[in-house]
Amino acid sequence: MADITLDDPAADEVIVRVEAAPINPSDLGLLLGPADIASLQMGGSVERPEVTFLVPPARMSGIRSRLGQSLAIGNEGAGTVIAAGADASALEGKRVGMLGGGMYADYRKLKVRDVVALPEGATAAEGASLFVNPLTALGFVETARAEGHRAIVHTAAASNLGQMLQKICSADGVPLVNIVRSPAQAGILRAIGAKYVLNSGDADFRRKLVAAIAATGATVAFDAIGGGSLGSDIIQAMEQAASQSMKEYSRYGSDSFKQLYIYGALDLSPTTLNRLAFGFQWSVSGWLLTPFMQKAGPETVSRMRQRVLDELTTTFASHYTRVIGLREALDPDVLRAYERKATGEKFLIDPTRG
Amino acid sequence: MADITLDDPAADEVIVRVEAAPINPSDLGLLLGPADIASLQMGGSVERPEVTFLVPPARMSGIRSRLGQSLAIGNEGAGTVIAAGADASALEGKRVGMLGGGMYADYRKLKVRDVVALPEGATAAEGASLFVNPLTALGFVETARAEGHRAIVHTAAASNLGQMLQKICSADGVPLVNIVRSPAQAGILRAIGAKYVLNSGDADFRRKLVAAIAATGATVAFDAIGGGSLGSDIIQAMEQAASQSMKEYSRYGSDSFKQLYIYGALDLSPTTLNRLAFGFQWSVSGWLLTPFMQKAGPETVSRMRQRVLDELTTTFASHYTRVIGLREALDPDVLRAYERKATGEKFLIDPTRG
Repeated sequence: MADITLDDPAADEVIVRVEAAPINPSDLGLLLGPADIASLQMGGSVERPEVTFLVPPARMSGIRSRLGQSLAIGNEGAGTVIAAGADASALEGKRVGMLGGGMYADYRKLKVRDVVALPEGATAAEGASLFVNPLTALGFVETARAEGHRAIVHTAAASNLGQMLQKICSADGVPLVNIVRSPAQAGILRAIGAKYVLNSGDADFRRKLVAAIAATGATVAFDAIGGGSLGSDIIQAMEQAASQSMKEYSRYGSDSFKQLYIYGALDLSPTTLNRLAFGFQWSVSGWLLTPFMQKAGPETVSRMRQRVLDELTTTFASHYTRVIGLREALDPDVLRAYERKATGEKFLIDPTRG
Repeated sequence: MADITLDDPAADEVIVRVEAAPINPSDLGLLLGPADIASLQMGGSVERPEVTFLVPPARMSGIRSRLGQSLAIGNEGAGTVIAAGADASALEGKRVGMLGGGMYADYRKLKVRDVVALPEGATAAEGASLFVNPLTALGFVETARAEGHRAIVHTAAASNLGQMLQKICSADGVPLVNIVRSPAQAGILRAIGAKYVLNSGDADFRRKLVAAIAATGATVAFDAIGGGSLGSDIIQAMEQAASQSMKEYSRYGSDSFKQLYIYGALDLSPTTLNRLAFGFQWSVSGWLLTPFMQKAGPETVSRMRQRVLDELTTTFASHYTRVIGLREALDPDVLRAYERKATGEKFLIDPTRG
């Protein structure tokens, strides 16, 4: 924790009292990154707690350049505008959703373009997750469409993001194959109308996956897990589904192009590709919201943002299982709880709680 | 081995006496595929030898649909036209290069569009490898250019294909980082003017790789090996090179897009991606000549083919270390020798030897 003094807002800036900021997996990536959670050490004082971790040497490569830096955390949030520059006076006193990092703070100064006035009566909690999950879920469907895929596979599918994706796909008529890891998670998705929900722990998971992919024609997958071989298994299942309709053998596999996008890292271990089982018509790529939006262009992004506001309390409603203050976020038990990233659990930070 | 009777050629067909057909890695993929070479069993007679292998269960998925089928082998070759249809009479008696599979045969009937008349005086050996390696090497440079990459990394780089690629890159001014596995292979490439040649067995290979990538700006790699973590190491080195010029840390890595194309399978083991070390701006994809040519379009392909004919005995000269007959190809010692795919060794089948 650190004290920072904010200057007065410039003409195109506002100062917002932060009232809600979610803990997204992408925030944990910056907050904890590749740290070994078991090495947690508490320090500092009650007023200014400090937490220290060790980073295993094998995971150092990706973070070497951040060593020694103090980085602000919290991608998005919501709060009330308490001061506004000359060009932004209409926002004074309004509740807004915010994007731009550093939201785990009492106050945040931002450009007007990084805030969105919430609909009348919306709570800070309702407006706290306007961007990351909603735009990512919409971005998946936009990506799939732009690249000519007819149906989508999604992993860790019972997450807040996954539920949004299911609602979008239901509304837009895009078949979605959901992969989860427990019956409880499957129940969450079935309750909102999901047709294809597979539990990767089931003995006949692979057979069911091929069947669901054959039934939907899915050729693109978005994978939140990243590590291990689940992504590879999905591509393999796509290839097996495509092979079912092949008339003759080709040692290069089917001519069906299969795309796996890795957008998360719930599993930090390396990705294993059993590529001999899926021919040569495939691609595995990183997927990230910001480059996607740059590529999609301002018109598409503006359409996506408007849809989020229009469906704020329906499609894009987030469910928080626990609300904590800023200091609580550094409490070892609380930290271990949100670090688990258990599906169905989501934490909201409310800095006004202290 | 099997006896087949050819009908007379149609108007747009020719019958060619096969005089030379290379054993390319892609042919071995079809001939031996995922077979366990150690399980080799000889059978049949001297006149009609048969060879049998076991396929490990873990590798069965990709080949299930070919079980029980008799498949013709040999992607390309050269020979003399001994019969021609009405529209192809100008080719009668001419020596031609051929594409279209099934070249490990005494005679081959083909459409005129699948043969190319060789320059006057060219031998069958010179014309046997007109397509696979030359068009693949040219295809790499076309792909890199079309996708905006400035320089290329290539593995197993001392192969016939790799030597062609080095000559093309030298002529076209495209920096090429060659990765080999022995000083002898490095020597082959240096002898034809390669500037960047790295031995992956050297203790400081990774450091040198980052330096060569930083010096050239390479952001695309073509990998013949496929298995293991070399491809991942290359992407990681590209990310490290890109990070050197980053002003601030981003937990999503650099914004430099890194592409690894896997076009071979010299290592049949799974591909391992240590993706935490390379951010989110990356893609790993299969690369295959036929889909590339379909995407590139007939104008580009025709330009590429003409260049191969123009530079047949220079850029695109293949070097064969051993010429064998058709029956010899099933001799266990010979088979094990070409199956090793040792760099610098290349076999040519001459069916006229029996």
